[in-house]
Amino acid sequence: MRSRALQHFPRVQFAPAVLRRSLPARISYPARTMSSTTQLRSLNYDNINPHVKAAKYAVRGELAVKAEAIRREIEQDPSSHPFDHVIFANIGNPQQLDQKPITFFRQVLSLVQYPDLLQESNAEVVKQLYPEDALERAKWLLKSVKSVGAYSHSQGAPPLRDSVAKYIEQRDGHPADPESIYLTTGASSGVNTLLHVIASSPNTGVMIPIPQYPLYTATLALLDAKPVEYFLEEHAQWSTNCDDLYTVIEKAQSDGTDVRCICVINPGNPTGASLPYKSIEDIIKFAAEKKLVIMADEVYQTNVFVGEFVSFKKVLRDLQKKEAGKYDNVELVSFHSTSKGMVGECGQRGGYFELVGFDPKVVQEIYKFVSISLCPPVNGQCLVELMVNPPKEGEPSYDLYKKEYDDIYNGLKTRAYALHKAFGEMEGVESQDPQGAMYMFPTIKFPQGVVAAAEKLGKKPDEFYCMELLKATGVCVVPGSGFGQVDGTWHFRTTFLAPGTDWIGRIVEFHKKFLDTYRN
Amino acid sequence: MRSRALQHFPRVQFAPAVLRRSLPARISYPARTMSSTTQLRSLNYDNINPHVKAAKYAVRGELAVKAEAIRREIEQDPSSHPFDHVIFANIGNPQQLDQKPITFFRQVLSLVQYPDLLQESNAEVVKQLYPEDALERAKWLLKSVKSVGAYSHSQGAPPLRDSVAKYIEQRDGHPADPESIYLTTGASSGVNTLLHVIASSPNTGVMIPIPQYPLYTATLALLDAKPVEYFLEEHAQWSTNCDDLYTVIEKAQSDGTDVRCICVINPGNPTGASLPYKSIEDIIKFAAEKKLVIMADEVYQTNVFVGEFVSFKKVLRDLQKKEAGKYDNVELVSFHSTSKGMVGECGQRGGYFELVGFDPKVVQEIYKFVSISLCPPVNGQCLVELMVNPPKEGEPSYDLYKKEYDDIYNGLKTRAYALHKAFGEMEGVESQDPQGAMYMFPTIKFPQGVVAAAEKLGKKPDEFYCMELLKATGVCVVPGSGFGQVDGTWHFRTTFLAPGTDWIGRIVEFHKKFLDTYRN
Repeated sequence: MRSRALQHFPRVQFAPAVLRRSLPARISYPARTMSSTTQLRSLNYDNINPHVKAAKYAVRGELAVKAEAIRREIEQDPSSHPFDHVIFANIGNPQQLDQKPITFFRQVLSLVQYPDLLQESNAEVVKQLYPEDALERAKWLLKSVKSVGAYSHSQGAPPLRDSVAKYIEQRDGHPADPESIYLTTGASSGVNTLLHVIASSPNTGVMIPIPQYPLYTATLALLDAKPVEYFLEEHAQWSTNCDDLYTVIEKAQSDGTDVRCICVINPGNPTGASLPYKSIEDIIKFAAEKKLVIMADEVYQTNVFVGEFVSFKKVLRDLQKKEAGKYDNVELVSFHSTSKGMVGECGQRGGYFELVGFDPKVVQEIYKFVSISLCPPVNGQCLVELMVNPPKEGEPSYDLYKKEYDDIYNGLKTRAYALHKAFGEMEGVESQDPQGAMYMFPTIKFPQGVVAAAEKLGKKPDEFYCMELLKATGVCVVPGSGFGQVDGTWHFRTTFLAPGTDWIGRIVEFHKKFLDTYRN
Repeated sequence: MRSRALQHFPRVQFAPAVLRRSLPARISYPARTMSSTTQLRSLNYDNINPHVKAAKYAVRGELAVKAEAIRREIEQDPSSHPFDHVIFANIGNPQQLDQKPITFFRQVLSLVQYPDLLQESNAEVVKQLYPEDALERAKWLLKSVKSVGAYSHSQGAPPLRDSVAKYIEQRDGHPADPESIYLTTGASSGVNTLLHVIASSPNTGVMIPIPQYPLYTATLALLDAKPVEYFLEEHAQWSTNCDDLYTVIEKAQSDGTDVRCICVINPGNPTGASLPYKSIEDIIKFAAEKKLVIMADEVYQTNVFVGEFVSFKKVLRDLQKKEAGKYDNVELVSFHSTSKGMVGECGQRGGYFELVGFDPKVVQEIYKFVSISLCPPVNGQCLVELMVNPPKEGEPSYDLYKKEYDDIYNGLKTRAYALHKAFGEMEGVESQDPQGAMYMFPTIKFPQGVVAAAEKLGKKPDEFYCMELLKATGVCVVPGSGFGQVDGTWHFRTTFLAPGTDWIGRIVEFHKKFLDTYRN
């Protein structure tokens, strides 16, 4: 999941075939493929599933298509633009932006893909390429899954879930049950599963933060359920105002909405905010009082720069200890992923969710639902295991692992603060302190001239700004309107994944010229 | 997709945590987890999504749970049963049943997972482990996807789709458009995508064969759409009677159902039937006349023992050539997978679908839908490329590839015929000639004594038979009721994946004793 502009990225073409101007020469059926004879076919735009049409996945907008077009133009003619490459800061896709994978993880995955390397006859050669602990781990994983080519249990291979449970226990200081853990195809498929089970009618409401990652609104649209929006408080580091949650739910309920769940993204996407202990406690108390499932999207749990990450599970268990009986029926599901953190393995599609406090009969339905998709990719399951159980001090791979991990962490942090500083120097731009995740979501106050110029082009000011930024600098970011924002305010989301900080300088320079041009 | 009992398999526990008798000792919250306080929670069985509850995934029934329980009993006490291991013939999961993966495929995947192996400094060592063509292919794949850890284009990496298009062209003798190809997370996710777009209201009808693979009925239940059943003709090698299709659709339409699609599984699951050219032509003509999307589930396209596989795409293009204009608007989607064939890499979750003749605006919605899930696993995408573009004659890996491929093919064929022969010797059992896929679906006529004995236990006769077979021999198969069958007839589905043929002898022996016991 995450960094959800990510379906658009360099090297590839964004639009489906039908949107292209030309097809490869060998295709001899263009007339059929390109014509729109809706009345002659079974399916046309007017008679397909209206909920599919209603789903918006805003990050794949005009801007990402333009960025890819520019990339291809530069490929053809390096002098075609005033910059030599596009910076895809619109998507949280670290390895696309040259982040190197953690060596130990890839060594082990390489071995589980080709178990012949572990045969005695290859031992002498193989030990020149792989450290001992990678060989041991690969053997253990292969024992656990038999083959990465065999279907696993629908919830994921049990020994791998044991490792996840141990990780959660160590993280939270509270026990975790491997049987309540479900390995997934990235976190997105887990979110999809839970929302499927929750959405019982068009009247079902699910509270979502604004701004949000559009997976939530898109999935609710597909399921014909209602997003119930609560706004994060930008001026207070994008925090969650708990009093406001009560106001929002009471309003929705008085409108007849059956509110059943609250989604929280912590650390935040697109905001980068990191929730303090007290806020999490307040949200749990709110959910307990209002009988809501808590969906805690915690995929950025290791991307925290200020203080420490606290999980919803930990705070819930703390509360249950403090006030026996009072919070026993709180239903919590927490999502994690191999795509983010210092792992950054988006393309491997690994993840998990943990269920806490769910009704056993509901759990059975969740299990049945996931079993229809058979099982998550077993290679990705192995990567989840590696993520939650990395090399330990004293083991052969520890030093390299630690160095790679720290370098990625420090690189992200350095660039986050560099961006923050740059935003601070830009007229009319304000950004909250970087706290976590992979994103900044600064606000921009536009002079009237910008608003007018945008209007002439039929664009919102933030869309106009981002497009001009892209054309002038090659830096691709996403307008705030793709995530939701308070009416009349404008933002953009940028990752801080791109290497170096030159591109940040380019943003500053563009901004000044842009404002000068449109000041009045 | 496929072999869809597969969520249950050895080594793992089938039931979700709540169904277990005991939890691991370290879990300190059993009371909460186990209690059923439905009225205190947000979610209970009565208020969750009714369509999730309605979905049936029958292959994960009582029988698979029992098989796993027996497996664990034998693990604890090898003398606990009159056999030394369970044969999981209920699931099409070849590598779980010791089928070795194709070496070349795994060599390449191993290299793309650990690109450091391709560095010049490792060349001398690496060439002792990998053939030259595996190294070259890995380099090309890495150039094409940048990293298996990076999100790809939502449709899958373009160069990999080019390879799929070439495969289809060579297979069919007609061009294929890489832009109409969508790489998927196994074939199941493709089926899910298409049914999502088609299912526009509770009145939408989708024609499905009976018997069928239960993915179809489960997904239609989730989408609240109507399965419109057409029965395959067992006595004629499980063929499709085209006249019958007209009768079925006219009946459904007269009942007010808006029939929009016909699903065909060829080669068949669970039947093992392989459709002749003429039948495919008739089905296309039927779909053209009735304006139906054709969903052609062709994941067993290389598992064909009699004649040659013919794709729907080929026959459609042939028809379009023969009668210009007449079939131009036929909408066809064909599914393929890395899970079956001689590849058998179920756990890697690779697959693709090809769209033909769809309305461009509908294609845009399909594209948006798949982009919400970001992208299929990139490792699985690479495997799709390897499947469609295996080593060629003269290349270093060709001989080994050919040998491995042929050995798997011949092993399957030998066991299919051995099973067929055995069924022919069993009283009251009849099976159609093995033609393809990985399954046989014999029918059994039970004497009245069996029916009565089953009834006493509250079971259907086929369920009773399969359970007794499992308990007596350790062979686990799936009762026909999980797939659908003509009322009053009884079947079971068995794979012919398990190595050796001893287990077939055990079935024959059991059958005789069973009938003798219950003859009257």
